[in-house]
Amino acid sequence: MDISTALILAIVVSLLSFGVAAYFYIWVKKQPSSNKTVHMVGELIQKGASTFLRREYALLARFAGVIAILILLFLPQPIWSGDFKDNIAMAVSYIFGTALSALAGKIGITIATIANMKAAEAATKGIKPSFLAGFRGGAVMGMAVVGSSLLGVSLVYAITRDASAMLGFSFGASSLALFAKAGGGIYTKTADVSADLVGKVELGIPEDDPRNPAVIADNVGDNVGDVAGMGADLFDSNVASMVAALVMAITLDKGAGNFTMMVFVYAALGLLASSIGVITARMGKSGDPSNALNMSTYVTTALYAGATALVTWIFKFEWRIWGAMIAGLLVGTIIGIASDYFTNDNKKPVHYVAKASESGPAFTILSGVSYGFLSVLPALAGIAVSALVAYNLTAQLNPGNPVYGMFGISMAAVGMLSIVGMIISNDAYGPIVDNARGLVEMGNLGDKALEITDSLDSAGNTVKAVTKGFAIGAAGLTIIALLGTFMSEVNVAASERGLAGIENFDILNPTVFFGLLVGAAIPAVFSAMLMLGVDRNAQRMVGEIHRQFNEIPGLKEGKEDAMPEYDKCIDIATTGALKELIPAGLMAIAATIVVGFVGGVNAVGGFLAGNIISGLLLALFMSNSGGLWDNAKKYVEAGNHGGKGSNAHKSAVVGDTVGDPFKDTAGPSINTQVTVVSLVSSIMATLFLTIKIFG
Amino acid sequence: MDISTALILAIVVSLLSFGVAAYFYIWVKKQPSSNKTVHMVGELIQKGASTFLRREYALLARFAGVIAILILLFLPQPIWSGDFKDNIAMAVSYIFGTALSALAGKIGITIATIANMKAAEAATKGIKPSFLAGFRGGAVMGMAVVGSSLLGVSLVYAITRDASAMLGFSFGASSLALFAKAGGGIYTKTADVSADLVGKVELGIPEDDPRNPAVIADNVGDNVGDVAGMGADLFDSNVASMVAALVMAITLDKGAGNFTMMVFVYAALGLLASSIGVITARMGKSGDPSNALNMSTYVTTALYAGATALVTWIFKFEWRIWGAMIAGLLVGTIIGIASDYFTNDNKKPVHYVAKASESGPAFTILSGVSYGFLSVLPALAGIAVSALVAYNLTAQLNPGNPVYGMFGISMAAVGMLSIVGMIISNDAYGPIVDNARGLVEMGNLGDKALEITDSLDSAGNTVKAVTKGFAIGAAGLTIIALLGTFMSEVNVAASERGLAGIENFDILNPTVFFGLLVGAAIPAVFSAMLMLGVDRNAQRMVGEIHRQFNEIPGLKEGKEDAMPEYDKCIDIATTGALKELIPAGLMAIAATIVVGFVGGVNAVGGFLAGNIISGLLLALFMSNSGGLWDNAKKYVEAGNHGGKGSNAHKSAVVGDTVGDPFKDTAGPSINTQVTVVSLVSSIMATLFLTIKIFG
Repeated sequence: MDISTALILAIVVSLLSFGVAAYFYIWVKKQPSSNKTVHMVGELIQKGASTFLRREYALLARFAGVIAILILLFLPQPIWSGDFKDNIAMAVSYIFGTALSALAGKIGITIATIANMKAAEAATKGIKPSFLAGFRGGAVMGMAVVGSSLLGVSLVYAITRDASAMLGFSFGASSLALFAKAGGGIYTKTADVSADLVGKVELGIPEDDPRNPAVIADNVGDNVGDVAGMGADLFDSNVASMVAALVMAITLDKGAGNFTMMVFVYAALGLLASSIGVITARMGKSGDPSNALNMSTYVTTALYAGATALVTWIFKFEWRIWGAMIAGLLVGTIIGIASDYFTNDNKKPVHYVAKASESGPAFTILSGVSYGFLSVLPALAGIAVSALVAYNLTAQLNPGNPVYGMFGISMAAVGMLSIVGMIISNDAYGPIVDNARGLVEMGNLGDKALEITDSLDSAGNTVKAVTKGFAIGAAGLTIIALLGTFMSEVNVAASERGLAGIENFDILNPTVFFGLLVGAAIPAVFSAMLMLGVDRNAQRMVGEIHRQFNEIPGLKEGKEDAMPEYDKCIDIATTGALKELIPAGLMAIAATIVVGFVGGVNAVGGFLAGNIISGLLLALFMSNSGGLWDNAKKYVEAGNHGGKGSNAHKSAVVGDTVGDPFKDTAGPSINTQVTVVSLVSSIMATLFLTIKIFG
Repeated sequence: MDISTALILAIVVSLLSFGVAAYFYIWVKKQPSSNKTVHMVGELIQKGASTFLRREYALLARFAGVIAILILLFLPQPIWSGDFKDNIAMAVSYIFGTALSALAGKIGITIATIANMKAAEAATKGIKPSFLAGFRGGAVMGMAVVGSSLLGVSLVYAITRDASAMLGFSFGASSLALFAKAGGGIYTKTADVSADLVGKVELGIPEDDPRNPAVIADNVGDNVGDVAGMGADLFDSNVASMVAALVMAITLDKGAGNFTMMVFVYAALGLLASSIGVITARMGKSGDPSNALNMSTYVTTALYAGATALVTWIFKFEWRIWGAMIAGLLVGTIIGIASDYFTNDNKKPVHYVAKASESGPAFTILSGVSYGFLSVLPALAGIAVSALVAYNLTAQLNPGNPVYGMFGISMAAVGMLSIVGMIISNDAYGPIVDNARGLVEMGNLGDKALEITDSLDSAGNTVKAVTKGFAIGAAGLTIIALLGTFMSEVNVAASERGLAGIENFDILNPTVFFGLLVGAAIPAVFSAMLMLGVDRNAQRMVGEIHRQFNEIPGLKEGKEDAMPEYDKCIDIATTGALKELIPAGLMAIAATIVVGFVGGVNAVGGFLAGNIISGLLLALFMSNSGGLWDNAKKYVEAGNHGGKGSNAHKSAVVGDTVGDPFKDTAGPSINTQVTVVSLVSSIMATLFLTIKIFG
């Protein structure tokens, strides 16, 4: 096999996955949807989601335009001092990255806002068809995201064969993901928190009650936050992990070896395995949707491990690299299981928090924060061990060159993300069936259908913990690998200029330590800015909901002709999210640039490491606490500790409200923030090396 | 000047400070206290506090005994392979460290439980005598703690002149502080949270109402947690900063220079300046107690800076080292001011959180967490900048030897802690006047006296934020310096054995990175264990309070002859705290040892750095959020956003309850945890270098 064959394979598999996506898209569209209310509400959601996406993309297009011009002028080096073709390649790749990411988000939203109606309608017929409609809707997203990321990386590599261009492409994907995730996260939690607070807590009306003016905004939020945002996030992680591996592979392949080829082949096999996994996914005889989701994940994992082993054997690839990759895959599974323990409502943490809620909301918060803190240990230790194993496996290929070891870590990340197609399908399934549940309620499709969608929804929540563990673990390994990429970029730039490169980032070097401390603060500040954004925005929306309930006659009592003004709430969520999403992202990028120009490459190395450590810590803490509170509330609602309306329930609702921005706004955005900062550092490596304001 | 003169100066100043402490002790004892109820309740508090301390020290004595035997057998190296006199010196120094720390705690508790009665009684005469009784009570503690730490370090150095023995002494102080802080923190918050929850929230009776069975336990808690625990904590920080500086000074002085001498001279001048500061402290004409506290701090700081400059000039000390020290002192002040911004009830964050509380407790929590996250940036950046400045100032003394730079960082820590005598006096003042307020209420000393103690108490809270900022900043610099100490100990051990030493801790070395990630998880797990301890214990006590209100006839109604069983609650708090304090501390120590034997000295270097970063992040977050919630509650109680009994108030109480274990149990214990782990690493350096299980 040679690199061209590998590239062709990757491109063919990408196109194949688009085929699978198209097939599912048509299949979902063909499912019946006849109920009028469902249709009407579904269209409102669709319209709200497209409006937000359009306005968000319009804003981000201008932003991306500015960045592209800056890249053109200054990166990889000022246009007047280097080869201007490099600048063009990087700028164009950047735009390509943002465009593909936006496209993936758009496709996801489109199918999700169709599949929710179909799943709602199918629920009147039984759990199996409803599950399939939800799952296949999610699979369209999964196949489109992974297909376009593999296609994008393959094309950029095939055309440029240049590390800078690939970093530019990855930065495009990341910068869009940063804002899409932050904006979507603020949107969804603004609506969710406000709707719950006024509806469930103050007025005691059920979730998804059509009287609630924020109910449509809430359902739109599930789509723009959980579907489009999550898609952009995993598109970004997937691209970043491949690019980190490829940048190092290019350096290493100059000597010998076929590392570049292996990255493409393994990635293609992962997508192939995921495609087979989603096609064969069915609900078995057990009738348990979680089982169906987990089974298809395990099938995909096994298929992938087998296929890569076979290919490695046939083409005589390096087994150590295969081992590094499998180490990542295994540890991803372990991290997933650990996250599951801390958030599953069959396990001790959820039970403990539910019980503590009897004593009041303060105890809900304290116990949830405590378990969130505990949950970071298995994941951090897992990432640490897989990085150590992967490094040591591949470092021995050439003990004199540390890049081999870092390449191993990047392959562990590729391994962890290999089944990402499956992961995204499972993840997007969640908000679709959550929406379907809302439509069933609003369309009055009957108690049976409500029960079915409830059980589908709860399966979505359980699976979410596992997939989130995977996503954070993979991001962790990717950003560690990107630290290696940064060093390799610095040294390439240094050797071109006859400057001294860097051999290490020594913690005892005070400049590195300075970077470590400042870098550690950034994810905290970033999370704070997002949460304050949600807080401000939710308070605006709570005011609006109060106004409507007070001013629209008959709304509170549920009179037939009293319609809430859904669009006012949608507009508040949209405008607020767009206003709040830019500052947090810019802060992180600006901090990187300031640290780089003040302290140079050593400070940036420390900064990245500090960012990774504190970012992983906070992301794991916030995601797991949030998931735990969500499930503790559901556990109480299922009739434990007094059930709905009890004191324990009131406390659990407070926990859930705190957890919402934790797990859906700040927590998952941190990954993207760290990735963006890592990529900014790599693409600006030359500038940080040559321009320093102090010292 | 020579080293003997410096040692004599240090010992004389220590004895002088004991004189000041004795003078204040006698002065406070002489103040009148005639009210019967105050006397009776005061004695109950005294008895409760001594009982806890006795039981705690009995437990810790056994623990320290075991550790001392282990040290004797294995450290600094196994007794059969080295000079057994070293082992004896280290073990004896260790015991000496624990004993002095316990003594300082005991003195603090004794005076605090007298001064509270005197301040309560004095409040009937006016604010000035009441302030003075509270402040001078605190000053006894301040002078005793700093005097004994300086005396202890001076004696150990004078007798052994050995780095290992000093590290052993410091480890003794730290290990006792770890458990005293954790145990006291669990005790105080168990009682506080339970008393508030049942009393204020459920029954709506005032704080410190004598009907509340937990009220005495709550007042005991202020003493064992905030006085004894805090004293042990700052004793530990102060010793650790001097020892870190001295260990490096010994290495450097082998060449030339008088660095050892400077450490003692500067530390002695700091204690002298603090003594003058506390003697001259008075409430001026303004009648504002915060002003009085802050003024005396500024006077001390100015005196210290002047005196050290003078001495540096006269004795021709190295100005660069003086500069490093002053950099620490300045940044300490800046960090204090930043903490003040985030917790002061005149500033935006408190107002924002109070306003957000109108929308419910979830918003109190979310906004408080957000501001807590934001608050880490100025402090981390401040520590980073002061470390960078101090390093670069002193590194230029000998650019070839990085120990010079690390010595500069340790001197910045010494500078930040130079006025620690003043800081402790201010800090111990807080719980004393808080207790006095309780006694005024329980003794029915009248509204005027209540108003006076209220204003004294509120000044204590404001000043606390500044002193906490100082304490965390100083701990940050100290633990950075201890990282240098660890490397220097490893290299000393390596050169003695002809092994390869370490030149750096490279972040890109996967073993170091492994340590970084695992180390970052430890403070989170440690905090979680402490908070779960409080949670479990508070639930036990809430049950007991409910029982008493239900079973003791007439208690709820406040009948004359219905006495609650205070001792039951005291016993629950004591037993629970003792049960919960050991596992968390042991976990941190065990994790260090496991990482050391698995990954060797490189993994330990990473582990320490990860521990420092995540420890500072979480400590700052938890302390500042906690202080913010406390003051937001007080701000609402002062009549804002509806005042007492409003919805905003109920939410603010939830915030305060969450904040209590954040700021008084977990947050401040983290410093000590990190210090202990750093010292364990240094004293076990030889073992980690020579014994490795893997690799």
